[in-house]
Amino acid sequence: MIWVHRSYRFNASHRLHVAELDEKANQELFGKCNNPYGHGHNYELEVTIAGEVDARTGQAVDLKQLDGLVERVVIQRYDHRYLSEELPEFQKSVATTENLGIEVFRRLSDEWRFEFPTGEPRLDSVRIFETSRNIVKVEAGTAA
Amino acid sequence: MIWVHRSYRFNASHRLHVAELDEKANQELFGKCNNPYGHGHNYELEVTIAGEVDARTGQAVDLKQLDGLVERVVIQRYDHRYLSEELPEFQKSVATTENLGIEVFRRLSDEWRFEFPTGEPRLDSVRIFETSRNIVKVEAGTAA
Amino acid sequence: MIWVHRSYRFNASHRLHVAELDEKANQELFGKCNNPYGHGHNYELEVTIAGEVDARTGQAVDLKQLDGLVERVVIQRYDHRYLSEELPEFQKSVATTENLGIEVFRRLSDEWRFEFPTGEPRLDSVRIFETSRNIVKVEAGTAA
Amino acid sequence: MIWVHRSYRFNASHRLHVAELDEKANQELFGKCNNPYGHGHNYELEVTIAGEVDARTGQAVDLKQLDGLVERVVIQRYDHRYLSEELPEFQKSVATTENLGIEVFRRLSDEWRFEFPTGEPRLDSVRIFETSRNIVKVEAGTAA
Amino acid sequence: MIWVHRSYRFNASHRLHVAELDEKANQELFGKCNNPYGHGHNYELEVTIAGEVDARTGQAVDLKQLDGLVERVVIQRYDHRYLSEELPEFQKSVATTENLGIEVFRRLSDEWRFEFPTGEPRLDSVRIFETSRNIVKVEAGTAA
Amino acid sequence: MIWVHRSYRFNASHRLHVAELDEKANQELFGKCNNPYGHGHNYELEVTIAGEVDARTGQAVDLKQLDGLVERVVIQRYDHRYLSEELPEFQKSVATTENLGIEVFRRLSDEWRFEFPTGEPRLDSVRIFETSRNIVKVEAGTAA
Repeated sequence: MIWVHRSYRFNASHRLHVAELDEKANQELFGKCNNPYGHGHNYELEVTIAGEVDARTGQAVDLKQLDGLVERVVIQRYDHRYLSEELPEFQKSVATTENLGIEVFRRLSDEWRFEFPTGEPRLDSVRIFETSRNIVKVEAGTAA
Repeated sequence: MIWVHRSYRFNASHRLHVAELDEKANQELFGKCNNPYGHGHNYELEVTIAGEVDARTGQAVDLKQLDGLVERVVIQRYDHRYLSEELPEFQKSVATTENLGIEVFRRLSDEWRFEFPTGEPRLDSVRIFETSRNIVKVEAGTAA
Repeated sequence: MIWVHRSYRFNASHRLHVAELDEKANQELFGKCNNPYGHGHNYELEVTIAGEVDARTGQAVDLKQLDGLVERVVIQRYDHRYLSEELPEFQKSVATTENLGIEVFRRLSDEWRFEFPTGEPRLDSVRIFETSRNIVKVEAGTAA
Repeated sequence: MIWVHRSYRFNASHRLHVAELDEKANQELFGKCNNPYGHGHNYELEVTIAGEVDARTGQAVDLKQLDGLVERVVIQRYDHRYLSEELPEFQKSVATTENLGIEVFRRLSDEWRFEFPTGEPRLDSVRIFETSRNIVKVEAGTAA
Repeated sequence: MIWVHRSYRFNASHRLHVAELDEKANQELFGKCNNPYGHGHNYELEVTIAGEVDARTGQAVDLKQLDGLVERVVIQRYDHRYLSEELPEFQKSVATTENLGIEVFRRLSDEWRFEFPTGEPRLDSVRIFETSRNIVKVEAGTAA
Repeated sequence: MIWVHRSYRFNASHRLHVAELDEKANQELFGKCNNPYGHGHNYELEVTIAGEVDARTGQAVDLKQLDGLVERVVIQRYDHRYLSEELPEFQKSVATTENLGIEVFRRLSDEWRFEFPTGEPRLDSVRIFETSRNIVKVEAGTAA
């Protein structure tokens, strides 16, 4: 078995805000990230797959196929968006890096069975880099 | 003479949109960057100063003083903001990296005379990194 | 469960030297790193925590709280220090990246119970980057 | 136990091509990477070892010894080479990042027993960075 | 006036070899880079343009137009190529980073007049990064 | 004419301290950098040379020759040193990045005439990166 990491970029904005909390509580919890107009990031997404190396092609995953899937499921949905305003999934939950990671993993995971119907290779994990020092990882089997 | 480069970071969102143009023209001009809800970036600002090295302290600029100025004039103004909505200067002009660079340079330049009344060190230039591959530089004497 | 990585920087100097060994043996073992006056690095510390995402805040850890803990326990202790001279823990053991990683993990771990008394989130591991090509990782359950 | 990561660089060229497939199938599979004259990369190799920290030296591995091994077994073999033409191992298998990772791991692993006869420290894994966004990891116990 | 830097990547291989010199002289001059089968790099190209900011669009250059030009003139020509074998310009001159920089600048410069017939913005310079520590810059007015 | 940038690394420690000033004044001026035991950095040195490209070799500078010079004049002198204690030049002046840049430029410049007696290529400038956000540049003709 082998692991392949592949990275993608998208630019988006978000606002950290809990509707049930008042302004002061939100401010305390999220500080500047609670700014009502939002702010943004150059997000980086790293997708890790696990699989066997195909003896003929020497590859564990067809990167064109993976790129197509990520483009369709993640980039087209989140690139150049105001996550907290435009995406229904972030009406119900705050658009933190944690929740973004969980959404990205779930969406890739849901489509994986159609894209790779044999179950091979497997989606191992995703990492979201909000900045170079803030990173979140979601792994298969750990995200409910 | 010697040059000192010092870097700062701020996160903000923007929308590229020209009010006088219709939707189709804006779309053609700016593509995804015209998204009405905006999108964002991890901006990096590099300030370059030019000056003599003080024989006693071995420094060309007091970095604490420079940091204070940049914090007050740039970071507090642009960090965690939706530039195109919240800042008056981007009501009149589009919040492109070019215009952001010009604004940052002008604002630092205007305060420079009060912070460094002897005129030494000089503000040489600023660079704004919108992403690692999109960079704009504004130099003293070239920005009207 | 989800993992959050967060990075911090500090600058310090050290000397690799074993008191029980003579000069020649130290020289053979550590080469230039045995220089009696020491030398230094821009250290980077990456802290990884593991936890559940809070359904309301969308966060697995309060980053302000984590930052405060790391600042108090690690940065104030090691930033701008000559590790091998000033820190009692490196009188008894050599200030290698390995031992620095073990100390940082142990100190964070010891305070963790007071900072996060529920045991949630967990401290998963720390990584110390001495340079971009020399990295050490210490994980929970593996450091005695 | 502790993990030590150490990085190395080498520059090489390769061509992705399966001899049993015709031109069209190769083109579909590998696109531009099938160019008959090859193309190249700045490869980065990260070696991860796992071990106990020596109480006296404070090290989990003698880096001079590790560097010598990697230089002899990997760098001298692959640096400034056209992998697909000059290396016998890539006559039988395609010089993908996956196969390169497997070869590097196997070669280090084979020599490990002679270099570290006690079995300590252990070779944990290797990662090959073909570009900053294409990475492959091979771990002990998973590569047949 | 303002400067805009924009970066592109391509992967290629080359061989440093002077036909008029014998093997020993080539070896002395270029070392491992003289390997008859070539070797390769992840090249990065940074294009710098200089111009006025358009008062309406806030841009000094239409990036879609610049991207199209660079794609057509540089990337399609050099990406995934063995420069020393496949490109006529490197039959007459060695495919060093210097000569690659001169060729890229000349080719962009030749097409610039058709792409930007007003002469605005200007092509200021190009930089080629062969590796992160080997960089060459060619500026307008200095390349014959 | 063409410019070639080449980068080198060295690790050193320093202390910012002015002997004529009392403890309080030093503390105010340099803060944590005044720590009596010093602290350290992973320094990066970028050397820029300017020259004509040799029509035969395609090179503006013989990199082996440049590497030898930098190794002899800079790396052997400053790598793994406590600059403020061990180097006579930093007894007379504070080991700031500015003064380090001036010393490196002067030392390279002094040896340049012997290494490149024709005056070609020229030493254009050096940059010292103390950290990724603190950089100093010294140019030919500007350092007294």
